[in-house]
Amino acid sequence: MSVMWTVKVVGLGVVGFTVSVELLGWLLRRLRPVRQPLKEVIFFPSEVACVEHIFTPGKANSCFCPLRHGVDTSFSRLLRHLMSASSSLDLCIFAFSNMDLSRAVVALHSRGLTIRVLTDKDYVAVSGSQIGVLRKAGICVHCVSCTMYMHHKFAVVDGRLLITGSLNWTLTAVQKNNENVIVTEEPDLLRPFIKEFQRLWEENDPARCHQSNGVQPTTPPASSGLATMSL
Amino acid sequence: MSVMWTVKVVGLGVVGFTVSVELLGWLLRRLRPVRQPLKEVIFFPSEVACVEHIFTPGKANSCFCPLRHGVDTSFSRLLRHLMSASSSLDLCIFAFSNMDLSRAVVALHSRGLTIRVLTDKDYVAVSGSQIGVLRKAGICVHCVSCTMYMHHKFAVVDGRLLITGSLNWTLTAVQKNNENVIVTEEPDLLRPFIKEFQRLWEENDPARCHQSNGVQPTTPPASSGLATMSL
Repeated sequence: MSVMWTVKVVGLGVVGFTVSVELLGWLLRRLRPVRQPLKEVIFFPSEVACVEHIFTPGKANSCFCPLRHGVDTSFSRLLRHLMSASSSLDLCIFAFSNMDLSRAVVALHSRGLTIRVLTDKDYVAVSGSQIGVLRKAGICVHCVSCTMYMHHKFAVVDGRLLITGSLNWTLTAVQKNNENVIVTEEPDLLRPFIKEFQRLWEENDPARCHQSNGVQPTTPPASSGLATMSL
Repeated sequence: MSVMWTVKVVGLGVVGFTVSVELLGWLLRRLRPVRQPLKEVIFFPSEVACVEHIFTPGKANSCFCPLRHGVDTSFSRLLRHLMSASSSLDLCIFAFSNMDLSRAVVALHSRGLTIRVLTDKDYVAVSGSQIGVLRKAGICVHCVSCTMYMHHKFAVVDGRLLITGSLNWTLTAVQKNNENVIVTEEPDLLRPFIKEFQRLWEENDPARCHQSNGVQPTTPPASSGLATMSL
């Protein structure tokens, strides 16, 4: 009786111990926050507000412009994601005339980041285009000239963050249009865009185009009109 | 000695049993395929091929058009996702002139699905626009007239699948442009688009606009030109 009792106690003790260890493990897994890849959707038009504090975070209250200050807007969220870049920015954009976004790209370039810009050949010479500003700042720009339009509007930040959607980088698109932008670290979405950027970048290398076409592809075309129905 | 031996054997047996149960559970969890939400990226331009088999799946070899047959293209993938709708389709699109996509939407409508189309007011009257075709088929269309452009290009299929990107639903965009389309069931991306559609749908209800503006908002405007720099 005494022996059987000992057997039962020891057996139950062992069961209790292993169950407790298992429960503890489960609890720790639950408590430890598993970081999910960022998946954010930003809609436009954006409220108009001052974004100076994003460019000069050390001087939070130094701007006295008439715009609203300290407001979180769709545009400020987009700009923050862009300015979060620490090593590289790959930009593949059809229309680029927004001066705040241009300032952001030039600022990242001056911090020493690797910036690559792909744009549509017909858009380069359009009045208001910021592509000339980027080129003057020393940023490497390739113009896509092999198809009707290079109509993408995406950016890859540090090879980790995808920014894509319907939004061209113009002031009207940001402040007036109904637009959407997806910001995500989701690898299944990010990887194809990284691959597509690399493909287009290599395919539209001016040196390569020069060799194959016998023309100077970086020269902007005279025409700047885009047929609306073709979009 | 014999008693202690029994204690050890029973104890080890119990440990072995619980560890085995735990391992079995882990193994079953590993073997059971956990279905991840669809996350697909489709790039354009698409190869041109016959898509008749998507419209008439029962008559696979009945088309004798000069296009290539039985080819999986970017466009056929997009069309298949669209035609997978079984209950509803919410479509929010800036430019819609692609006749295959129009045929798909009309086909879904004739199957009895609930179709809602939101489009830009300026695009309705543009030559080649398929919005008139959809209206004639009895599909409910609301025109967004409150901003510069309704520049979205997204669809929500059955409230479960989001199709969004840079692609306007035109022939040029599909066959000539560099474009991207994300197709995903990811709830964090899907939910905001469903909400945005509903907001725009209600905000641009012709009855409501009629009451608030005193004008007939469904009448297409005379002008069809879009300023390129404003995109």
